[in-house]
Amino acid sequence: VIVPMFGLFCERLSETVKRFGGEVIEVKAEWGLACNAEEIKAILDVEKDVKAVAVVYNETSTGVTLRSLPDIGKITRKKGILLIVDAVSVLLGDHLPVDDWGIDLCVAGSQKCFACPPGLAMVSVSEKAYEAAEKNKFRPFNHDFLLWRDFKARLETPFTPSIPLYYALDEALNMLMEEGLENRIRRHTICAETFYKTFENLGLEIVAKNEFRSNTVIVPYIPENINVDEFRRVLREKFKIAVAGGVGKLKGKVIRIGSMGVVSTYEVLATINGIIKTLKMFNYKPKNKLKKIVLEAKETLSQLKNFKF
Amino acid sequence: VIVPMFGLFCERLSETVKRFGGEVIEVKAEWGLACNAEEIKAILDVEKDVKAVAVVYNETSTGVTLRSLPDIGKITRKKGILLIVDAVSVLLGDHLPVDDWGIDLCVAGSQKCFACPPGLAMVSVSEKAYEAAEKNKFRPFNHDFLLWRDFKARLETPFTPSIPLYYALDEALNMLMEEGLENRIRRHTICAETFYKTFENLGLEIVAKNEFRSNTVIVPYIPENINVDEFRRVLREKFKIAVAGGVGKLKGKVIRIGSMGVVSTYEVLATINGIIKTLKMFNYKPKNKLKKIVLEAKETLSQLKNFKF
Repeated sequence: VIVPMFGLFCERLSETVKRFGGEVIEVKAEWGLACNAEEIKAILDVEKDVKAVAVVYNETSTGVTLRSLPDIGKITRKKGILLIVDAVSVLLGDHLPVDDWGIDLCVAGSQKCFACPPGLAMVSVSEKAYEAAEKNKFRPFNHDFLLWRDFKARLETPFTPSIPLYYALDEALNMLMEEGLENRIRRHTICAETFYKTFENLGLEIVAKNEFRSNTVIVPYIPENINVDEFRRVLREKFKIAVAGGVGKLKGKVIRIGSMGVVSTYEVLATINGIIKTLKMFNYKPKNKLKKIVLEAKETLSQLKNFKF
Repeated sequence: VIVPMFGLFCERLSETVKRFGGEVIEVKAEWGLACNAEEIKAILDVEKDVKAVAVVYNETSTGVTLRSLPDIGKITRKKGILLIVDAVSVLLGDHLPVDDWGIDLCVAGSQKCFACPPGLAMVSVSEKAYEAAEKNKFRPFNHDFLLWRDFKARLETPFTPSIPLYYALDEALNMLMEEGLENRIRRHTICAETFYKTFENLGLEIVAKNEFRSNTVIVPYIPENINVDEFRRVLREKFKIAVAGGVGKLKGKVIRIGSMGVVSTYEVLATINGIIKTLKMFNYKPKNKLKKIVLEAKETLSQLKNFKF
């Protein structure tokens, strides 16, 4: 299994494959970047035994989205191998036409862009993935696609489902239908753009290089002379804004802003306002005038004015 | 792994072991019975490579409880092998002092005697089970006890938990503390006794033999000339009482009454009332007079009068 490596959740994916006895070919990229399709192709041209490419589409630890995913899908489809996608933190928040891109297995979580409580996993399975499962004798009972497919055919689940969460998902999907998928993705895009523009105006560097920037997780560096934990504490206590810290190599260097699900003008402006004021308390001098920064943020967000959300 | 086989969930347990590459020695019993500790011991005296005994404590398909469990625990402890218990449909509804009985791994579900919504699994792990896990290289990532132990030490979970269900569990545990564990088990016992006495008085046979009768799942045979699906439909539509049908070999022969969690005088009497009236509609002639049957049911239940539940 080929796994592009560009953050913590890529490491977890690689670990998961290994735990099931799989052999992993890791394609490493600097944190802030991700691999391109040519790198995958080059490996496939040499290694003849590859059964799948497994990728994290949106890496939560770095705010990097694997923009080469559609091109990777063309390659895996041509080679007849599986394409497995962890889309936990991004499905509905960015473009991901699962069938068009040739994705065989796509996994997402209810608590992210679905704007639903946590506790459910959504999994889409292609015919090719079902066929691979049929050939695989080793399928853990509770995660066996074939068992789920059998029960799905008679509108049942093989194990007791979490009824309250199914009701919540039903309502979350109603809300999605009301908003429309394209509108939801556009909302996430505009909110993310507002954050990126603001951080650029403030003079804060973004971990993800331009072409890899995520629509749902924004990860800016915090100036070296500011203690990130202290920064997060002030932001939380004074402005009621909770952001995550860095993990792994980025620990103590960045904050991570989850901008997904129930996120719109109000949440983005409140977060930006809190961050600007907290930076000020730490004596940070923004690159541009605050008035210009806030005006540009509002201007970007104004594209959302027709959203009722 | 030795697995006593006396119903559908025993079959699932055996299947689960096999799916993970384990070899199973099945100890078969007629449905309605279960094995005794001597049968396990006899196998252990011959087979030297057994690593665990895995049992279903309360078999939901037959209403049979494995009453030999404490004695099996003495044997596995003596032999230094693991005792694994599926207690999904019974924990808190019947006696199960996990440590006293030498149980290394005990699994239960939130939706049964916890009287909580479905969606959470409770797992207790002994030191011996942790040690076995440490020696086992093959531990699926999301169910890896050692990972859970590491995160538990800092009051975290390794993966996003279902927050709404955790709140529900917190309240369900408050309710358990208010009622008291012994009172809760006694409540289940008295409700079950009422069902058993009533079915005997009606002249309906119980699948589980006397010494194996479950506290939480009551499975009576329905007279042969009555269509069980029709019986269940009338009970549901006329009396708003939902009971399960039989599975496997018992399909079309029995009903299964879940008597656990939120169950007390009201629910038991309403169910008994519905069953008696439905039997009458199917022209069934009870063994005893209805007046005597209802009086005896109320008398048994009257032991619950001090319960506020």
